[in-house]
Amino acid sequence: MPRVVVDVMLKPEILDPQGQAVANALPRLGVSDVASVRIGRRIEIEFTGEPDLDRAREIADKLLANPVIEDFTVRVVTADETAGAQS
Amino acid sequence: MPRVVVDVMLKPEILDPQGQAVANALPRLGVSDVASVRIGRRIEIEFTGEPDLDRAREIADKLLANPVIEDFTVRVVTADETAGAQS
Repeated sequence: MPRVVVDVMLKPEILDPQGQAVANALPRLGVSDVASVRIGRRIEIEFTGEPDLDRAREIADKLLANPVIEDFTVRVVTADETAGAQS
Repeated sequence: MPRVVVDVMLKPEILDPQGQAVANALPRLGVSDVASVRIGRRIEIEFTGEPDLDRAREIADKLLANPVIEDFTVRVVTADETAGAQS
């Protein structure tokens, strides 16, 4: 079933201490080729009828993202792109 | 610049109180056609060289996701799909 995915990420100019913490932990795992890590939120919205992008954008703007420090994108995905199965 | 995106979502059988709270708030916004909301994490990993999916999968498994309650997917995205610009 198609659903709408809202990706919320901190704006590029905003520091991301959580992502920085992950990046700093990587050398201890033996990983040295990562330049940066940024951590945001992914929200899957399932509609009772047809997926409604405009409605999802309104929800994201009012409820899911803080437009002062975050950017968001809204898109429709089909079932096989949702993070249900480990790939 | 291409980067690797890791999407981490709770497994379908795990309750998501955060998503439930958003879903419960929607009628107050006048939205009544949403069946469910699930909230997860989106992590963008930028490599110094070529994006490395296997490496990203290893990082996700060890550092980003809890495999007991979460599923993750790993994929390479090009610059224009990253959540930089509001769409």
